[in-house]
Amino acid sequence: MLMKNTTVKRQIVWGDLDSLGIVFYPHYYKWIDASGHVFFKSLNLTLGSLWKERRIIFGLLETGCRYHLPGRYNEWIEIVTYIDDISDKVVLLRHDISRLSDRALMVKGFEKRICLDVSDPLKFKAIDIPHDIRTILSKAQSHK
Amino acid sequence: MLMKNTTVKRQIVWGDLDSLGIVFYPHYYKWIDASGHVFFKSLNLTLGSLWKERRIIFGLLETGCRYHLPGRYNEWIEIVTYIDDISDKVVLLRHDISRLSDRALMVKGFEKRICLDVSDPLKFKAIDIPHDIRTILSKAQSHK
Amino acid sequence: MLMKNTTVKRQIVWGDLDSLGIVFYPHYYKWIDASGHVFFKSLNLTLGSLWKERRIIFGLLETGCRYHLPGRYNEWIEIVTYIDDISDKVVLLRHDISRLSDRALMVKGFEKRICLDVSDPLKFKAIDIPHDIRTILSKAQSHK
Amino acid sequence: MLMKNTTVKRQIVWGDLDSLGIVFYPHYYKWIDASGHVFFKSLNLTLGSLWKERRIIFGLLETGCRYHLPGRYNEWIEIVTYIDDISDKVVLLRHDISRLSDRALMVKGFEKRICLDVSDPLKFKAIDIPHDIRTILSKAQSHK
Repeated sequence: MLMKNTTVKRQIVWGDLDSLGIVFYPHYYKWIDASGHVFFKSLNLTLGSLWKERRIIFGLLETGCRYHLPGRYNEWIEIVTYIDDISDKVVLLRHDISRLSDRALMVKGFEKRICLDVSDPLKFKAIDIPHDIRTILSKAQSHK
Repeated sequence: MLMKNTTVKRQIVWGDLDSLGIVFYPHYYKWIDASGHVFFKSLNLTLGSLWKERRIIFGLLETGCRYHLPGRYNEWIEIVTYIDDISDKVVLLRHDISRLSDRALMVKGFEKRICLDVSDPLKFKAIDIPHDIRTILSKAQSHK
Repeated sequence: MLMKNTTVKRQIVWGDLDSLGIVFYPHYYKWIDASGHVFFKSLNLTLGSLWKERRIIFGLLETGCRYHLPGRYNEWIEIVTYIDDISDKVVLLRHDISRLSDRALMVKGFEKRICLDVSDPLKFKAIDIPHDIRTILSKAQSHK
Repeated sequence: MLMKNTTVKRQIVWGDLDSLGIVFYPHYYKWIDASGHVFFKSLNLTLGSLWKERRIIFGLLETGCRYHLPGRYNEWIEIVTYIDDISDKVVLLRHDISRLSDRALMVKGFEKRICLDVSDPLKFKAIDIPHDIRTILSKAQSHK
């Protein structure tokens, strides 16, 4: 992979499973969200400080997952996160989840995040990604 | 709406919120999943008994959500669930989540569920939707 | 019961279950927390407005549950919440969870909540429960 | 500590927080449950295989937590798990959660788990802890 990416490893635990003994799918979204935070942090863009210092968040526009293989108890998985696309207001993160033991693909997820001004906590407003942040994101996308 | 649909109402609670005071998005998927179960049950297709009696489940192929409006503390929401498409193996459920107070659309979600034979709990196999179930689903889709 | 109490009803859904087909226990705490909010609201003490208007929250000191009967798919349960004890800084909430069909007791839970001044979001400070709130809570405890 | 113990490290993520920016408490129970599994596994008592091979589980009788310090975004925590007491049917696990940066105690949790025969999935029955398992647990408790 040429673009910048981050990898998060985790183990599937009892509480992640449903009655069939496979991962209950909303958990994948929790893990994806956490991996997105790790990715932004790797670019020195902590979502917490963007919010506190600049009143900006990258809010959710759309999320999705395709399920290839069910996750099971005690399996180690890894989530690889990278930027697939950037436009004026929106950044598209991909999250590929695979089983560590054999690298089999389990889930392909994405998050479309839009740049929001949250100065007014009750009315978020879409804005262009500020220039300095856009530069960082573009570099991460085309990282070589 | 001409097709059969079910409606689930629920109130957003403290534990659904993130640090910004808005719903943490994986919760929408939990609610969508629960609403899918209610929908199947309304067709006398309890997912639990399909599994126990016929070794069939409608497993997840793909899920997704588009976010239009953030959910906030104490708001009542409703989730309307219906079938949008059926093919040999796959049924597409839509879940429209709106705010009860003003009917504003909050989230549009979907689940693509594929018919699986789970006789072997460690190896699920995609199969055609059995004829009797397909008839029930088709009727629900074109319900007038 | 002589004291004021509130009742919340809910149905156990697929996503609440573990691999054994019974409720994964951290969910009981989510439901208990939500029922506590309903109880405070019934006293016109919305936790949200206490926080926003008076910079007070009733933070957690201790929680616990005893499990009498496992919860299963599709069962309707009810959670009855009431005050069992009040001291200068602390209020003890009880939450009795039972199965609706036969009133069998499933879980007995409690939350010990302490009155906190959260003016400084990074350093919470225990304080005496303000007089007006204490009056409301005492009345709820001895309600006839 | 003289007794056998296991340590699990994890980082607090965005999705663990509530509106106050502190960990929503039911998450501690999820982490505690997962740490209990790690502990049992360290004794070669995988809860999954006990269930599948011997139809035994260590079900929950009681759980509880005392909260000393709120967990916040991005903090690394560690959960140390050990056996505090064993009786004929019951084992008491303690879980001490502390902040990695300064070892400050955040939460003291426990799980009282009772040995259950789950041959009949709809009617669990308390039994004495089988001799071989009891030996393993006793050794872990008094480990030097």
